[in-house]
Amino acid sequence: MTSPVLHCLRCGRAAAAGGTRFDGCRACAAEGIGVNTMPPLADLGGVDLAAYRGGPWGLPAALPVSGPPVTLGEGNTPVVRLRRDPEHAQEGRPVGELWLKYEGGNPTGSHKDRAMAVGLAAAVAAGADTVVAASSGNAGAAAAAYAARAGLRCVVFTNEAVPTGLRAQIDALGAERVVHRGTTAERNAEMARAVEERGWYPLTSYSSPSPGGNPYANEGYKSVAYELARDFSGRRIDTVVVPTSRADLLAGIGRGFRELTAAGLIAREPRLVAAEPAASAPYTAALRHPDRADQERTRVADGPTVAFSLGEERPCWQGLDALWRSSGTAMAVADDAIMAEYRRLATEGLIVEPSSAVGVAVARELVGGPDALVVAIGTATGMKGLGD
Amino acid sequence: MTSPVLHCLRCGRAAAAGGTRFDGCRACAAEGIGVNTMPPLADLGGVDLAAYRGGPWGLPAALPVSGPPVTLGEGNTPVVRLRRDPEHAQEGRPVGELWLKYEGGNPTGSHKDRAMAVGLAAAVAAGADTVVAASSGNAGAAAAAYAARAGLRCVVFTNEAVPTGLRAQIDALGAERVVHRGTTAERNAEMARAVEERGWYPLTSYSSPSPGGNPYANEGYKSVAYELARDFSGRRIDTVVVPTSRADLLAGIGRGFRELTAAGLIAREPRLVAAEPAASAPYTAALRHPDRADQERTRVADGPTVAFSLGEERPCWQGLDALWRSSGTAMAVADDAIMAEYRRLATEGLIVEPSSAVGVAVARELVGGPDALVVAIGTATGMKGLGD
Repeated sequence: MTSPVLHCLRCGRAAAAGGTRFDGCRACAAEGIGVNTMPPLADLGGVDLAAYRGGPWGLPAALPVSGPPVTLGEGNTPVVRLRRDPEHAQEGRPVGELWLKYEGGNPTGSHKDRAMAVGLAAAVAAGADTVVAASSGNAGAAAAAYAARAGLRCVVFTNEAVPTGLRAQIDALGAERVVHRGTTAERNAEMARAVEERGWYPLTSYSSPSPGGNPYANEGYKSVAYELARDFSGRRIDTVVVPTSRADLLAGIGRGFRELTAAGLIAREPRLVAAEPAASAPYTAALRHPDRADQERTRVADGPTVAFSLGEERPCWQGLDALWRSSGTAMAVADDAIMAEYRRLATEGLIVEPSSAVGVAVARELVGGPDALVVAIGTATGMKGLGD
Repeated sequence: MTSPVLHCLRCGRAAAAGGTRFDGCRACAAEGIGVNTMPPLADLGGVDLAAYRGGPWGLPAALPVSGPPVTLGEGNTPVVRLRRDPEHAQEGRPVGELWLKYEGGNPTGSHKDRAMAVGLAAAVAAGADTVVAASSGNAGAAAAAYAARAGLRCVVFTNEAVPTGLRAQIDALGAERVVHRGTTAERNAEMARAVEERGWYPLTSYSSPSPGGNPYANEGYKSVAYELARDFSGRRIDTVVVPTSRADLLAGIGRGFRELTAAGLIAREPRLVAAEPAASAPYTAALRHPDRADQERTRVADGPTVAFSLGEERPCWQGLDALWRSSGTAMAVADDAIMAEYRRLATEGLIVEPSSAVGVAVARELVGGPDALVVAIGTATGMKGLGD
């Protein structure tokens, strides 16, 4: 396999070619900014979206991996129209359409499957025998499943906060689960040693400030944009709301929409909105600064939240870039509002993870305004946590 | 809404028109045979399968419901090719392709969503305000979700064997869960009273011998056949293996393939195989009788099994009919083999309910023989049970 050269999205420096260390741009990290090194955008010219079957492997030419696919049937998740907000309707205000893209329909129950499918194909192509992920839950489960599928050994570093169902899922899939009781920095250091000394292939971030996840894996998220463009064919999506932590999903969706626009497959990119729990909201804090130099260097306290999948002290640069490019914004939601939205979605028949409710809560605000069509990404099923 | 007249599949007698009691053919029941009354098959002439978007509502004209859809994005589940059996390969025997259609990707995590989507649309069209289901798990969760989606009240009769995760799911979706401690006959009688006296709309069977589930709802299962025909376009599927209890899914898939064949959309119907846990295997027992009259009247002990979603004393007639029409068969799997297959699927990255492993275990036997392409239906995710 010939890997494309990775370049820093911010400063343009090339990463070491052909390596399997993915710790982002070290030059920008020295400035206190976490940013990923990525392959070039794909050229979607000539693609027929109506014939696109969904998922990362529905458009393999858009992926930076030339080896055989690793797949469990990820992607092609449903978009469900949510009920309109009766309060807004009563007030006679214009009310747009609110849709949920339900990523809980993926094989292991979260959007992470899109990334891990591609990440494991990249690991196989790189000749890895062991993959490693640091995760509080869904990414670990997805890494475990796709490693099993690919026949590779998988080690997952978790902490003690992982919900029972997720822990059991990782174990059932045969991954080695290491419960790390130290700080994030200590966990990162241990993972870095495993990558450096043992040659384990990293599927998630392990440096600080975090540059975001494995660049190859992250390209799997572009398929969310492709599917939305296909499913809303001919209609303009005003806004896509993405629950955001390290912005792997947000940045991936942004890249997908840029590829679609460049190829003329959609007229213009939707506005992207990062949705965060108020307890841990670096993007919301960053965008309060007028100056981008300050935005890039924002640091907040990362407090506990019911949206346990989310939480980060600093914005990953490519997340900010996705918001800047699309004239987007970031909005934070308090824990009580997150749980109110969780319960409200249950009254519509949907059990999502609280992190998904963060996105819907933000999206509900937006459809009360001028936005005619808003899609919230529901990142994960809530079924895993129900036994707790 | 004009409901189509329902006819007994076995004797052809018409059911009472326009009613909302669905207790099968009473004349056949008097002979000791449980059989459903169903609408006519749909005419799929002129359908372009390549453009079919999946799920029951992807072909609304094939459904006996003319009201607005009730949907959470059900259907369009992935088909995943499983690894070939190394033992068979080593022996130099021909080894076919084994695929899993993973119904755990549905919104509530099981194939039941296909039925409940249509069943709730039928309930709304019938003017119901309350729906009722008797279920040990997945059907109850699906009924609860789609009732919530439709804005109808939902009552679920369960027993004490329901796993924690499923129980929590039903509760979180706002259904009223009634834990019934009596016999199945007593539970049926209570549900029949609710249907008769309170006008609750029944989504599952409540008479004995069981005729199978709500006829309108069951038509949702035809979409499994449509999706398989689309996804294996141009290739012949030799056999479809279906985990079977009351045969709602088996019979629905059979009806779908018959419609496809009649419209010339596939060359011939695949052979259907009912997969059962050995502890509760009425179809396997029935097909040991040479005479169909004896097959119809088979009764077996319904013992406990790890495949908790399965289990029935008697075959529902339409299940036998599906096997007869497709020159199919039934095969039983012991609990230790079910759990071995469950673990084996986990090593491929898939966590399914033990009931789904029943189908795959049977399918593995078949791909060692002359069958070139076998699809096993994986009926439900195993994620719900992991917290137990």
